Amino acid sequence: MPKVVSIVGHHNAGKTTLIEMLIHELIKRGFKVGYIKHDPKGHGITDKDGSDTDRIFKLLDKVSLLSPGKLTLWERREDAPMDVVYDYFSDCHVVILEGWKSMKGIKRVVLGELEVDGLRVEGPQDLQRVIDYILED
Amino acid sequence: MPKVVSIVGHHNAGKTTLIEMLIHELIKRGFKVGYIKHDPKGHGITDKDGSDTDRIFKLLDKVSLLSPGKLTLWERREDAPMDVVYDYFSDCHVVILEGWKSMKGIKRVVLGELEVDGLRVEGPQDLQRVIDYILED
Repeated sequence: MPKVVSIVGHHNAGKTTLIEMLIHELIKRGFKVGYIKHDPKGHGITDKDGSDTDRIFKLLDKVSLLSPGKLTLWERREDAPMDVVYDYFSDCHVVILEGWKSMKGIKRVVLGELEVDGLRVEGPQDLQRVIDYILED
Repeated sequence: MPKVVSIVGHHNAGKTTLIEMLIHELIKRGFKVGYIKHDPKGHGITDKDGSDTDRIFKLLDKVSLLSPGKLTLWERREDAPMDVVYDYFSDCHVVILEGWKSMKGIKRVVLGELEVDGLRVEGPQDLQRVIDYILED
């Protein structure tokens, strides 16, 4: 199963930028990487109201849209990221979660000021420490 | 494996409305149903430019967003709906494709004027014929 790590921090702390750098480095080392972003307030609108897929998703648990080079899949799901890891990212070496500040039982990288446990880092200058932390057993 | 049928017809021929009625009827009969919409021109925008998931999808083959009650998953994919059926909808009894006018080897329901082979129907009044066609071996 993949190594799973969550990257947490306040809004605009630089989480996604750190994750981009992490991914570049992990890919360079030959790892297959997955990513799950937390959207606890449902701000991430991923379909248009009244689109065909939106209409059909009201009736079914899982629908998809196949566009040039890209599949979008929507599925009814509880907020349980480890289930998503098992179901969709089990072929990855590392899965990076963005968010889930208070989730127990996984490694956590804490960016900037935030009162939770984990590896505390300031930014991209700490990339190597983050990599070591993720890859250690 | 699921029974797979494509519903084809011109724009605004009523495909999605027919599919909604089909799904209601199939669910009533106890069938689990899946749905894949064809977006050959990429008009179905499912993420915002510059969102965190959009940024990370530039680097990875598969990313996801977990919102309240809903997972959105994006994956790099060729235009091969049967692969999507196998990978994501193999637990369904019936998978309805919307579009793919010229795909070979699957059942096709043709709504209105369109010069392709298949079961020709006019609209919701033909629902029972469509159901029989989908469920027959």
